Amino acid sequence: MSYLGVGVSPGNVPVYHSTNMKVLDRKIKITELVLRFVILGLGVLSVVLIMTDSQVREFFTIQKKATYTDMKALVFLVVANGLVAGYSLIQGLRCAVSMIRGSLLFNKPLAWAIFSVDQVMAYVTVAAVSAAAQSAVFAKMGQSELQWMKICNMYGKFCNQVGEGLASAIVVSISMVVLSCISAFSLFRLYGSSKIKKALW
Amino acid sequence: MSYLGVGVSPGNVPVYHSTNMKVLDRKIKITELVLRFVILGLGVLSVVLIMTDSQVREFFTIQKKATYTDMKALVFLVVANGLVAGYSLIQGLRCAVSMIRGSLLFNKPLAWAIFSVDQVMAYVTVAAVSAAAQSAVFAKMGQSELQWMKICNMYGKFCNQVGEGLASAIVVSISMVVLSCISAFSLFRLYGSSKIKKALW
Repeated sequence: MSYLGVGVSPGNVPVYHSTNMKVLDRKIKITELVLRFVILGLGVLSVVLIMTDSQVREFFTIQKKATYTDMKALVFLVVANGLVAGYSLIQGLRCAVSMIRGSLLFNKPLAWAIFSVDQVMAYVTVAAVSAAAQSAVFAKMGQSELQWMKICNMYGKFCNQVGEGLASAIVVSISMVVLSCISAFSLFRLYGSSKIKKALW
Repeated sequence: MSYLGVGVSPGNVPVYHSTNMKVLDRKIKITELVLRFVILGLGVLSVVLIMTDSQVREFFTIQKKATYTDMKALVFLVVANGLVAGYSLIQGLRCAVSMIRGSLLFNKPLAWAIFSVDQVMAYVTVAAVSAAAQSAVFAKMGQSELQWMKICNMYGKFCNQVGEGLASAIVVSISMVVLSCISAFSLFRLYGSSKIKKALW
């Protein structure tokens, strides 16, 4: 992990340092761009799969329709994925522009803003996926101790499509977690210096 | 945010840089120590509150006992809080020792290990709290569309104690999120240098 040249007197080897940083930054930028567009694509897919999902069943003379609004966790998941997809579109465009211009992120307020929103988005998507997964487990397995019945026995097609939306959302949340680490790296390395080892606590 | 002296030619002002870094590092160490022991205390409290919680109700001649094992999300929450409390004890001791010795974290493999485990713990606690909160909402409000009844109407004392355990767990997860940001800062600033602005992408 010494490819950045930090800790090996970068002041004396500026060319080595600069070349390796270029390679690392290019890799990071490409990874960020890919992840932003993966999140955009799968976030929209998840929203569409869950929002368009419905199934009608007849119980004697009564018709019952299952939709995502029957379960608040799915509404939360749709809102979270919609938000993160919109945010990723904006960030993806910013990332693409900075790659075309060949500029690096040295603006601390902007780096702080990206870091903060990425962190919030990562935790919100993880929380939304977790709550929806918990609801899905109840729907699929029931909870006999509480007399909550397995509704997936009755609404199989509906449950399968929700499962596909949930799978997309899981990939979105994992990508968002990786992105939040990248933006933490981009921000906090601005606070490092070659003099860091000279400071004693 | 320029108190570290980075970006203002730290090479020329080593005393200023070093003094400000000392103050920042002291604050970070103290915050970390406090948070590690808050997590330890509230994590244990949450585990105890949920594990010791039970309520017996009689329905005609049948006795029914509610315990945390009836709901898998509570088992997950207990395991997650137990893990994070144990981990915080070890990390809290390491943090205290490094404060007493007056040493700073410059060991990259150790910084990577702490960062990685902190990230995992933060996301696991957020996921556990989210799943448990979703289950608690079902238990408290029911879900009439799915004919899942409000069990808190029958087991009021049990639900209240779970609520207290969940409240502790929420503070634990928020503290863990803050700690994961601190460990990201501690790690990634090791990758910065005063030469960073000379690199062009």
